[in-house]
Amino acid sequence: MLQVKTPEEVLRLIHDKFQPIPGLTEFVPLEAAAGRTLSEDITAEEYVPDFNRSTVDGYALRAADTFGCSDAIPAVLSLQEEIRMGEDAGFALLRENCAYVPTGGALPEGADCAVMLEYTEDYGDGTIGIMKPGAPGMNVIFRGDDVCPGKIVLRAGRVLTAQDIGALAAVGKTLVPVQRRLNVGIISTGDELVPPDQQPLPGQVRDVNTALLSALLTEQGAEAHSYGIVVDDESLLHETVTRAVQECDAVLLSGGSSVGVKDASCRIIESLGELLLHGIALKPGKPTIMGRAGNRPLIGLPGHPVAAFVVARLFVLPLLDRLAERERPLWSVTAELSESVGANHGRAQVNACRLIRQDGRVLALPIRSKSGLITQLAGADGFFCIERDCEGLPKGAPVQVYLN
Amino acid sequence: MLQVKTPEEVLRLIHDKFQPIPGLTEFVPLEAAAGRTLSEDITAEEYVPDFNRSTVDGYALRAADTFGCSDAIPAVLSLQEEIRMGEDAGFALLRENCAYVPTGGALPEGADCAVMLEYTEDYGDGTIGIMKPGAPGMNVIFRGDDVCPGKIVLRAGRVLTAQDIGALAAVGKTLVPVQRRLNVGIISTGDELVPPDQQPLPGQVRDVNTALLSALLTEQGAEAHSYGIVVDDESLLHETVTRAVQECDAVLLSGGSSVGVKDASCRIIESLGELLLHGIALKPGKPTIMGRAGNRPLIGLPGHPVAAFVVARLFVLPLLDRLAERERPLWSVTAELSESVGANHGRAQVNACRLIRQDGRVLALPIRSKSGLITQLAGADGFFCIERDCEGLPKGAPVQVYLN
Repeated sequence: MLQVKTPEEVLRLIHDKFQPIPGLTEFVPLEAAAGRTLSEDITAEEYVPDFNRSTVDGYALRAADTFGCSDAIPAVLSLQEEIRMGEDAGFALLRENCAYVPTGGALPEGADCAVMLEYTEDYGDGTIGIMKPGAPGMNVIFRGDDVCPGKIVLRAGRVLTAQDIGALAAVGKTLVPVQRRLNVGIISTGDELVPPDQQPLPGQVRDVNTALLSALLTEQGAEAHSYGIVVDDESLLHETVTRAVQECDAVLLSGGSSVGVKDASCRIIESLGELLLHGIALKPGKPTIMGRAGNRPLIGLPGHPVAAFVVARLFVLPLLDRLAERERPLWSVTAELSESVGANHGRAQVNACRLIRQDGRVLALPIRSKSGLITQLAGADGFFCIERDCEGLPKGAPVQVYLN
Repeated sequence: MLQVKTPEEVLRLIHDKFQPIPGLTEFVPLEAAAGRTLSEDITAEEYVPDFNRSTVDGYALRAADTFGCSDAIPAVLSLQEEIRMGEDAGFALLRENCAYVPTGGALPEGADCAVMLEYTEDYGDGTIGIMKPGAPGMNVIFRGDDVCPGKIVLRAGRVLTAQDIGALAAVGKTLVPVQRRLNVGIISTGDELVPPDQQPLPGQVRDVNTALLSALLTEQGAEAHSYGIVVDDESLLHETVTRAVQECDAVLLSGGSSVGVKDASCRIIESLGELLLHGIALKPGKPTIMGRAGNRPLIGLPGHPVAAFVVARLFVLPLLDRLAERERPLWSVTAELSESVGANHGRAQVNACRLIRQDGRVLALPIRSKSGLITQLAGADGFFCIERDCEGLPKGAPVQVYLN
């Protein structure tokens, strides 16, 4: 008999019972790689920059040739060359000489620093006065300062940000190895459901979960596949789930508020594999079931949209991360509770909230709602959790808000 | 003569000098609306739910018929009907009667609550024993509890989350009015730049900013248009900028590390409209220029990729938000500095960092880098700011980290 599990136990179960899917790598062009998960470490194969580079407009020189100079007693160096942007210096700097260099230009061999134009004077006779002594390395990015061959630039599992894309461009990785998107099947069940574009008849409601879950999964980099609305008919549901399991990496069943559908879902999961979980000690989210067919997860989410969202956010996303070896740390915003919140039911509690800034503080405004009331969640900015043994939080208590 | 402005002054300038672009609305299907910006308030046109709905499997009844009942003395009611999921009850409940109702089923007229199955007993003779008194509203979502016609479900300016998509599905808004994506032109300038897929020759570096800025803009919902790399030739640059201004809602010039290119960019902006800003008191990011051609912003970003990223993140995104009337509050993660950070140069400072969790605390690990070193930023999780008048922060100081 499966017991109701705590959120921590469910996360451990996910880690223990599912393995990363092998061979997910595909190559995408750099412009399509943002938001994707890197599937291999990226190692630099060359020096960046590949030459010593000035960070100022000025004169490339040997620092030693300017030691002790000042406004009063400039060091006078011969102007050997003018270096142009984007070209190799192509010469070696002679002793007591300098070369004009633009910001980003290549230093000639022998130069070890650059002095800014404003600390120099062109005497017009082929010599330059230097009023400020250089120091080795001053205003210079040396060859390989950014990266040297063999350096790991980015690690496998990283979800690529815009900056990471910049780093890949810098090292010339224009074809990027990423995990292919996971295919996730979504099946809505319930005799009362109609598609959102249909006017509900008395007794009917619109199917919210397919749209909600598809949006969440897509945003998180998965490929959502809707199998439509299946009425309460066990053999029909069995057939649809079987097809979805064959076609997808994971399958979400949602809806089926009634006991009959939940029981049917359990039987179907058991016929296709193994039932692993029957209930989470979480409010909302208790009537959640989870199983596997081989390494393919089958999750029965609560029918209430808010509960379905919470469970998808807290457990389905980590499960997909596990399958794709994706690292997605969850950071939170510290906020002050704007009013007290009760909790007293032996389960951890998830509370949706709005965030506002007031007098330099960040306030979390809890949204009071029955868990079925999706429109009360419209406009929520995130949620905070109250531990199982906590009897509630007073006004002003600090909470960690996870953004939606 | 334009002065270097503080970050706050730049944000005020953006607000004062640019207006929302009128007529940006386009309609997209619900499945494509996540992440888009709502361009009109969404008002419900119907009741959700449209009928009184049970939240449990049990019996719909009149609470008054069960007052005072208990395990010892059940209230005995006649079973009038069985209500089926997805159908109208289609009858009125008689006094002293009850009707079986599944979770999510419609209550008959006259019923004001539902009692859970586990507190009842079916005597098998057409009567049901109720062991727990009902109370009006118990286990019921009344018609319109979720929304009533005329209620504003979501406000214009909101960037739609998965939950918002669920709310739109619930009220049947399957064609969603959103702001069209802004077209942003990106022009990279510099004789030293080659495309990322090309091997740099001595003196050359790969163009990082086009890929970096495109990824950032795309992630933020804009449409990035690259105009390629333009060499240091003022008339060629003038021609490209003029074309980009005609074709796009905003134009970013990036690169041009040298003084000559910056000066040329200023002249070009002035010839097309008005120069508004010449330098931001920010490290990195100082050599930033901004102007406008009519209501179209032209921004010259620093050539260093890290500086270009910081300026794009802190100023270009708010500027695009202003043009599209988009609300995108920036929330931060509170972290502890893992080591001291210096700052002593009369400018506000932006510091990239990694975030790690250690012993239940969140630590910010500052990344030490020259501003050109993009690969040191690869793997950064966010950044924190140090105020202009602050001389640095000690180890352990709390910092607000904005996620990348």
